Amino acid sequence: MLTKQSQDFAKWYNELVLKADLADYSSVRGCMVIKPYGYAIWENIQKEFDKKIKELGVKNAYFPLFIPESFLKKEAEHVKGFAPEVAWVTHGGNKKLKERLAIRPTSETIIYDMFSKWIQSYRDLPFKINQWVNIVRWEMRPRLFLRTLEFLWQEGHTAHETEKEAEIMTKKALDIYQDFAQEYLGISVISGKKTDSEKFAGANYTLSIEALMKDGKVLQMGTSHNLGQNFAKAFNIKFLDKQEKQKYVWQTSWGVSTRMIGGLIMAHGDDKGLILPPKIAPYQTVIIPICKNAKEKNLIKSYISKLELKDVRFEVDWSDQTPGWKFNEWELKGVPLRIEIGPKEVKEKKLTIVSRDSLKREVISLKSFDVNKILEDIQKRILDNSKKFVKNNTFIINNFSEFKKIINKGGLVKSFWCGNSKCEEKIKQETKATIRSIPFKQSESGKCIKCGNVSKTQVFFAKAY
Amino acid sequence: MLTKQSQDFAKWYNELVLKADLADYSSVRGCMVIKPYGYAIWENIQKEFDKKIKELGVKNAYFPLFIPESFLKKEAEHVKGFAPEVAWVTHGGNKKLKERLAIRPTSETIIYDMFSKWIQSYRDLPFKINQWVNIVRWEMRPRLFLRTLEFLWQEGHTAHETEKEAEIMTKKALDIYQDFAQEYLGISVISGKKTDSEKFAGANYTLSIEALMKDGKVLQMGTSHNLGQNFAKAFNIKFLDKQEKQKYVWQTSWGVSTRMIGGLIMAHGDDKGLILPPKIAPYQTVIIPICKNAKEKNLIKSYISKLELKDVRFEVDWSDQTPGWKFNEWELKGVPLRIEIGPKEVKEKKLTIVSRDSLKREVISLKSFDVNKILEDIQKRILDNSKKFVKNNTFIINNFSEFKKIINKGGLVKSFWCGNSKCEEKIKQETKATIRSIPFKQSESGKCIKCGNVSKTQVFFAKAY
Repeated sequence: MLTKQSQDFAKWYNELVLKADLADYSSVRGCMVIKPYGYAIWENIQKEFDKKIKELGVKNAYFPLFIPESFLKKEAEHVKGFAPEVAWVTHGGNKKLKERLAIRPTSETIIYDMFSKWIQSYRDLPFKINQWVNIVRWEMRPRLFLRTLEFLWQEGHTAHETEKEAEIMTKKALDIYQDFAQEYLGISVISGKKTDSEKFAGANYTLSIEALMKDGKVLQMGTSHNLGQNFAKAFNIKFLDKQEKQKYVWQTSWGVSTRMIGGLIMAHGDDKGLILPPKIAPYQTVIIPICKNAKEKNLIKSYISKLELKDVRFEVDWSDQTPGWKFNEWELKGVPLRIEIGPKEVKEKKLTIVSRDSLKREVISLKSFDVNKILEDIQKRILDNSKKFVKNNTFIINNFSEFKKIINKGGLVKSFWCGNSKCEEKIKQETKATIRSIPFKQSESGKCIKCGNVSKTQVFFAKAY
Repeated sequence: MLTKQSQDFAKWYNELVLKADLADYSSVRGCMVIKPYGYAIWENIQKEFDKKIKELGVKNAYFPLFIPESFLKKEAEHVKGFAPEVAWVTHGGNKKLKERLAIRPTSETIIYDMFSKWIQSYRDLPFKINQWVNIVRWEMRPRLFLRTLEFLWQEGHTAHETEKEAEIMTKKALDIYQDFAQEYLGISVISGKKTDSEKFAGANYTLSIEALMKDGKVLQMGTSHNLGQNFAKAFNIKFLDKQEKQKYVWQTSWGVSTRMIGGLIMAHGDDKGLILPPKIAPYQTVIIPICKNAKEKNLIKSYISKLELKDVRFEVDWSDQTPGWKFNEWELKGVPLRIEIGPKEVKEKKLTIVSRDSLKREVISLKSFDVNKILEDIQKRILDNSKKFVKNNTFIINNFSEFKKIINKGGLVKSFWCGNSKCEEKIKQETKATIRSIPFKQSESGKCIKCGNVSKTQVFFAKAY
């Protein structure tokens, strides 16, 4: 039995990841194994996402895993942010290395070293590249999918002629993340700008999408950084512009990781297990035959062969388990649609269907069965529920004692903030809540929730993963 | 200008990899950057190959990059073979680690540690898993694609109930490699068994596909290992069989890597550049418009829109370069089919087409243009040429002085071998040639090319990469 969410959400999460066969602990501290069922979700995410970024003219490539220590040190903010969590290679081929090599915690430095070689003229710009790779960050408190020493991600890197172009690109990458989260993962996300204290080490600013989990905490699901000319100057990435002048490029970088799978679990899952949106579910439909003997089995087999399931990822569970056991198992695994077929369904030319999200059981005629329509409805419903959940758990608060009460219960709190990092820090210390993001559109003005100074900026506070 | 193959084949190769934008040297010794054009070939290989292995019931997963030193040491032969080329992580998160972590040089040990946890009963078997990952081996003499400190590959790992099943699986994986090399890469390969001195460290035996390069040397393109119960015993991978007895599993592992791209270059390329088989070429067709003014340009544009190019990966080169420059550039990049369209072609409703492999220029009517047929013909011709090349460069030799002469010129030499590793070693010392593989089918008998003892085994000798 799965622990209930209301009992212990963290325990529910860990148990579910293991029981649903998404991932397992490896013998290497903090490193997980992504099992086939979990990896299939990642493959579906990759496939759809890769199309979206290629449409932007971004091309995939592959850069080295190793980063010389001297490279990491070239951008002052960057090394300060990442050095504490780097894994170091000191020996290779039985010899001590002259210079330590970092395992990439992110690839700006090793990629931009190549940019400085490849980019010469305005004709080479914009330069847009992406890689799907493994990343290592020495996490002290690892958690499956959410924070592991090693994880998989995509990292996009672009270089532009003008500051404006880089700004547009930073936003465009975020828009893709937001669209993808909503359209494919069925997760309604908050998008906006991070405060300076939460931005990427080496960026001018960072944009992010943030998603509310079922326990009221927020997970950062993707980030897009405007790097300005910080790395261009550190790595001497210059181009000859149309007026034949040497100029530094303007850059962006952006990434989403296997952490998204953690978000998927906690944004939709319930006490019965996962709820997977059809667009990224490894199996979109599972068919459970219910038969007592070989004759019934054959009848059901031929009935199944009549089902219109073209282009649907489906599985027929012919295993020896009882129907009840199978229902539980596939609910745990979050398969969007279950079809039950017994002798009664065959005789009456009907199907019993159960949608994973609503758990509503329906008997429909074989004739009216339209699997694509049903899956589309489920996909839509999952997003609608997510939107509702965010709406019901977003609170506009103007009073700090109320703020503390609400934050403690969980959810998103929208309040005015003066822009001073001291207020931000004090709030964090008192409530453990951080500013998740600053929405792009601001219209009203009010008073900072902490110091009471006049402010034109409302921000989202929450406790975060 | 590209160095000629006949002048200096190694120089030709390196120049071509760089000029065709396949890869570049990184600032990290021995590590390359796979550029978008090279990576697109890898993506096409992955896509097609992944389908083939999924059809075998193999599922993708992801295992940690790090392998504890104690794991690597569990299988005695394995550690002896791999320890000299391991990169070691000794520090993480600013602390010295208690146990060094190897960056995976191959993943048997870290994967089989999980197998011992996951496999309990005969019901769990066969267990078939694969991962697409980066691998690090500390190479002393790195060469782009052929031998780099880091490379990309797939590694399949299976566990079976019986020795026989593992034997069949080992061969099946090799068959897939052979089919893939021929059907997709257009490379005629030699398949067979490696000698004990050339087998995988920890395997009972290794099968391989070997391909003859244009310089007469041979490249190992893929290997499949029968691991017997060696790792099962080292990692205690046991299952309860149908008679409820505890037994060790029988295992296989098999892999192909980005080295394949090196093979692709050297098996087909010529003095003008790459020759890419249509099935894996990033662009299958390039259209070169030949126009002097805006009016002609518009005519050609609308003419191109009439071309039937559905499902074809194509590019129209509208850049400012001269047609001659473009011809050279796309020939260098190995695009299978070039279509030239000028005012003459538009007027006469014709197309000028040039196949990259034959460089034959043809004028055909727009009506008769069937791009899929043309690409199929090119794909077939590339394989036919490869077959011819292998045939013309395979020599059956029974006399050692002749053997030395032929081996020195290059090519595959088929000779009898007594099976003694001393003869194998002496031949290697005297000629630099190794036994590339032992063909599966043997019928004749003769005398060992070195010692003259009676032998029933003919083998392929060659100088190898």
